[in-house]
Amino acid sequence: TKAAYIETGVWAQKALKEAKLFGQVDVIASSADKNFSYIPENIIVPADADYVHLCSNNTIYGTQFKSFPESNIPVICDMSSDIFSRAVDVSKFDLIYAGAQKNMGPAGTTCVIIKDEMLGKIKAGTPTIMNYKVHAENESMFNTPACFAIYVVMLTMQWLKELGGVKAIQELNEDKAALLYAEIDRNTLFTGNVAVADRSIMNACFTATTPELGKSFLKFAEENGIVGIKGHRLSGGYRASLYNALPLSSVQYLVLLMQHFEKNNS
Amino acid sequence: TKAAYIETGVWAQKALKEAKLFGQVDVIASSADKNFSYIPENIIVPADADYVHLCSNNTIYGTQFKSFPESNIPVICDMSSDIFSRAVDVSKFDLIYAGAQKNMGPAGTTCVIIKDEMLGKIKAGTPTIMNYKVHAENESMFNTPACFAIYVVMLTMQWLKELGGVKAIQELNEDKAALLYAEIDRNTLFTGNVAVADRSIMNACFTATTPELGKSFLKFAEENGIVGIKGHRLSGGYRASLYNALPLSSVQYLVLLMQHFEKNNS
Repeated sequence: TKAAYIETGVWAQKALKEAKLFGQVDVIASSADKNFSYIPENIIVPADADYVHLCSNNTIYGTQFKSFPESNIPVICDMSSDIFSRAVDVSKFDLIYAGAQKNMGPAGTTCVIIKDEMLGKIKAGTPTIMNYKVHAENESMFNTPACFAIYVVMLTMQWLKELGGVKAIQELNEDKAALLYAEIDRNTLFTGNVAVADRSIMNACFTATTPELGKSFLKFAEENGIVGIKGHRLSGGYRASLYNALPLSSVQYLVLLMQHFEKNNS
Repeated sequence: TKAAYIETGVWAQKALKEAKLFGQVDVIASSADKNFSYIPENIIVPADADYVHLCSNNTIYGTQFKSFPESNIPVICDMSSDIFSRAVDVSKFDLIYAGAQKNMGPAGTTCVIIKDEMLGKIKAGTPTIMNYKVHAENESMFNTPACFAIYVVMLTMQWLKELGGVKAIQELNEDKAALLYAEIDRNTLFTGNVAVADRSIMNACFTATTPELGKSFLKFAEENGIVGIKGHRLSGGYRASLYNALPLSSVQYLVLLMQHFEKNNS
């Protein structure tokens, strides 16, 4: 009947808005005051809520939980945008859900990791298709499964395994992020959007020092074959997504363009 | 608060069972008494129910509504297994839903055709993802769409259009069904499972005259490259599915095998 939510971005907000349809929602921590440019520190999870919900990575703003709050109540986490990008102690979560479309495979399937004791703890009148117990009992074939999407997830998992697994991809992701953030910090024409300690290794968000340079760099990047780095309208600037599938060479190329752009505009 | 359901098979049952979670359900017609081997006739749709629900084609049993009951209340129809197989007056339905996986494309997306005035007529506390109004307002992009499945549906629709559209495929489907049912009726070793007038053009269900012949024909068919014609455990015998994608030649081949089997066993 009562749930604790941590508000760190649009997806966290969507989750808590939805939860309000079904019970009391307490927002126990929020970074809305600074347009979600940081992860709240020292979060106290109340003992009297039924669960706490958080979103591990915030794609629009480029922040990411580096560690997770201690909790004596069940922890539910939306890991859609950073699952399989870094090692996580899954045992500390009671329910993890993640859409496939970032690091797993094509849109159209969702991965759910749930503890047995969480199964069936649902409000009466919940549609059966939303009852994870039913899905578990039917081995994920209660509905006709999205076979193609699931098949591609399998291929992606095989690729990840051959690469050395989550630990290997985490190193690669950290290298990619470190390279790009170093350039953002070094380059006099750009600044990072978020608190340094909370920078996401999946989505690097940054801004040009003036609006004119901002437009100009976007054009320069597009002319040189980089698309899709315009930031979300809610955060502006640029967003470079560094999901598992992105090779280091793409980041190296972006860094090179940023350096050229700096020279051209000095 | 009150809904009328027509019970013609397992999927119709699943729908009415689910509806019972949310309100009163009156089963206004049923063919459960004869293992769903026919479509109830002269169905009177009550004027005081909020809607009537039916399933146009019953894959497991091989029955199909050839005409639809007259109704003064909204008509909701599950057309998962025969959408785009025959011309239907869509204007007579207030809500049609159909999983893609039979005649449209790969599993993982669902087609919904809904009248504007039906949008938003939902019970408070319904999860937002189940609110068709929200999907309509967001042009089917409230969630991240299952792009691959939708793309393949587009290709299938283009293929169907080039073929001459629904009218053309209906003729082909009727030819396929007529050919197979003619053989079932002619062949002394097989009998059709369902009332002749209610025979589906999508799923032809039939049985061998003895259990021994039944096993023997399944083996014979498999030896000759026909797989997947074993009937569902709920109806037994054989089920030959004749979905849009199946060419006439496959039906001709099955008919040939049935004729050979008859000769071998006479």
